[in-house]
Amino acid sequence: MSLYTDWMEKLEQNDFTVGILGLGYVGLPLAVTFALKNVKVLGFEKSTGKVRDINAGKNYIADVADDDLKKVVSNKHLSATDDFSRLSECDAVLICVPTPLDRFKKPDMSYIESACRSIGNSMRRGMFIALESTTYPTTTENFMLPILEEVSGMKCCEDFFLAYSPERVDPGNKSYKTDNTPKVVGSIGEDAREIALKLYGKAIKQLYPVSSPKAAEMVKILENTYRLVNISLINELALLSGKMGINIWEVIDAAKTKPYGFQAFYPGPGIGGHCIPLDPFYLEYIAKNFNFDLSMIHTAGQINTLMPHRMMNKIMFALNRMGKSVNGSKILFLGIAYKPDIGDSRESPALMVMDEIQRKRGIVLFHDPYIKEAESESGNRYTGKDLSDELVQEVDCVVFSTNHSVFDVNHIVEKASLVVDLRNAVKNVNIENEKVFKL
Amino acid sequence: MSLYTDWMEKLEQNDFTVGILGLGYVGLPLAVTFALKNVKVLGFEKSTGKVRDINAGKNYIADVADDDLKKVVSNKHLSATDDFSRLSECDAVLICVPTPLDRFKKPDMSYIESACRSIGNSMRRGMFIALESTTYPTTTENFMLPILEEVSGMKCCEDFFLAYSPERVDPGNKSYKTDNTPKVVGSIGEDAREIALKLYGKAIKQLYPVSSPKAAEMVKILENTYRLVNISLINELALLSGKMGINIWEVIDAAKTKPYGFQAFYPGPGIGGHCIPLDPFYLEYIAKNFNFDLSMIHTAGQINTLMPHRMMNKIMFALNRMGKSVNGSKILFLGIAYKPDIGDSRESPALMVMDEIQRKRGIVLFHDPYIKEAESESGNRYTGKDLSDELVQEVDCVVFSTNHSVFDVNHIVEKASLVVDLRNAVKNVNIENEKVFKL
Repeated sequence: MSLYTDWMEKLEQNDFTVGILGLGYVGLPLAVTFALKNVKVLGFEKSTGKVRDINAGKNYIADVADDDLKKVVSNKHLSATDDFSRLSECDAVLICVPTPLDRFKKPDMSYIESACRSIGNSMRRGMFIALESTTYPTTTENFMLPILEEVSGMKCCEDFFLAYSPERVDPGNKSYKTDNTPKVVGSIGEDAREIALKLYGKAIKQLYPVSSPKAAEMVKILENTYRLVNISLINELALLSGKMGINIWEVIDAAKTKPYGFQAFYPGPGIGGHCIPLDPFYLEYIAKNFNFDLSMIHTAGQINTLMPHRMMNKIMFALNRMGKSVNGSKILFLGIAYKPDIGDSRESPALMVMDEIQRKRGIVLFHDPYIKEAESESGNRYTGKDLSDELVQEVDCVVFSTNHSVFDVNHIVEKASLVVDLRNAVKNVNIENEKVFKL
Repeated sequence: MSLYTDWMEKLEQNDFTVGILGLGYVGLPLAVTFALKNVKVLGFEKSTGKVRDINAGKNYIADVADDDLKKVVSNKHLSATDDFSRLSECDAVLICVPTPLDRFKKPDMSYIESACRSIGNSMRRGMFIALESTTYPTTTENFMLPILEEVSGMKCCEDFFLAYSPERVDPGNKSYKTDNTPKVVGSIGEDAREIALKLYGKAIKQLYPVSSPKAAEMVKILENTYRLVNISLINELALLSGKMGINIWEVIDAAKTKPYGFQAFYPGPGIGGHCIPLDPFYLEYIAKNFNFDLSMIHTAGQINTLMPHRMMNKIMFALNRMGKSVNGSKILFLGIAYKPDIGDSRESPALMVMDEIQRKRGIVLFHDPYIKEAESESGNRYTGKDLSDELVQEVDCVVFSTNHSVFDVNHIVEKASLVVDLRNAVKNVNIENEKVFKL
């Protein structure tokens, strides 16, 4: 029996184990989605804390329903381990590890490499391997494949199957979850393609195959580059609009009435999250290898790098109007998550503005209903305050840095002596009034 | 009776005349839309040929239905004149003149200025004036208003009313026409706002008021800058994808399966039409006045300026593979319109590529089912050929430069010896084969 027909039989009989490598905001929802469809899932995670949590049915990812996790753990469809040699128990391994940038904004491929080495060491014949992490085009074929072949001593397409299928997780999205977001798959060879479609098809409603892993890798980068470029554009136009006395939020709402050919993006103090600020630079990295300069991404990157500094200036201008300096002033940031109504401050632009203010000797305070503590990239630690009228009245400036819907904006504005609104939280002010300054 | 209540009464009784200044692809559809709603419209146009055509019920704009024009001319709701002193007969004047760039890519405001002078010379008290042409923010208040006041000797808001309401004409769009495309209006003062909404409301289903003319001016620029930037981005990614052996068209189709946060744009030999290549540079112009550098627009502009040159290279590479030079080769361009299924070659990137090829001593031929003759910006005149198998077989290279749906692509590819496909006309080829080269 060929490895391919063997796979088809396993898929037919639902008799296989899916390993999910990395149980973060991508891997855990994927693991639970498979397990809910009665697929046996074994989760691999270096953090023993997370392994313990999962095996105790304790959820730590907001996009996963607590009850779903409890259910699949108690019915044994999902278990977690930090023992990577157990990869040998898996028929398929889906890699959901981080792909960060290093301090010089170069791709940090160490997580993918380490995943490939673990898999190579425990590979069994017929294994199907797919990468879900965002990365530069050619990673699957030119980076992963050689490591997998070398470590395992097996051959791709003959002994194992390889594909790339980018995650499309949008944290906090209420409509689109793992199972109902169409998924792009690019595989090496026809067999891998069929296995990938049938395997992912167990958990995900709509699959969209493309001709190669590198095409699928480019799909994900295109999606996020599109977002980076458009957020940068609107940030730049917001800064100009501010100078011209035009309310950019009003402009965007009006432009949205165009029924075709326009999609709204909103300005903010910078770009946050794990994808948009990073992914395009993966493409920039590989482009250099092709002697190609991606000027749009480069320019977008420049704008974003400057945004926290410009926001610091905005706060400085506002205080200056009151005859105050940043130095010695108490500045309260409301919201440090990178987007509204979630509790994640990674790559949050609010933290970068806070760092800038602190560097200028401002006294930085913050409140976020979902985050009690945070450490910025430059290593500053901030501890959240409870929100109270006294706090709002006591500080020299209140900054709306994330528009969590729970904020009682009008009440806060009433109590505050000075407000810098980076998120259009204050709707009834056009550009500025005596105490509110808008981005 | 105040000028405002006077207006309200006229609007109530449908007893007023709308002057439309400029009867091109914006003005004529607008004029016909008003006239179809039984508003008396007087069209002003310098071209005596167009005036004669309209008064004879002869249509020259594809987006206007021939029967509609005939109907409103024969029932006297619409007539045209080249006598601008008749502006004095109008209660309202809507300005639909061109706003091109000069040879140094600076805004050419002469059409707006001349329109304002004509109106100022024939202004009557209570006149409502609106500009529809795309222009930089502050034009209405800082450029038009002073001219109108000076020439007429009247005061804005006291003696006449002024607004800006950008056209959103999308030539060839079958779903959205003048009457059912929501229209943004920014007026000076409350009276002008009410008059504008009621007046435009006669012809247009949905109006969206903003707080000022400059906000409305920015809306239009945002819409078109969004398009410029995204087309530039996809063009840049297309060039990189070509180098990496990735089919950008396949990537875009796959990215489109993302159900949120993505809008598809397609690459091409450059950006054409009357809006996208020009409008953002209006903003760049005024930004300099605010000591502000719009780096995204600048970068996007650079990419587009280079696209025709890069397309020429693509043709040169393809010919080179056949051992041929551009010099002396016959190159047939299929389609010179700036978008599919329309007959407009203004700002067409195909013409710019043709110029480049001719400069390199290639023998340039073209066929376009909708265009028989064209003159490029650099003054080269091209005359269309009839499409025949003989012609396709005779030339050294066929270039798909506009994807008109009437082209029998497979048949043309079969007959041609070499094809350069700038528009993904040839669907069954991934990146290239022995005779087809894709952008």
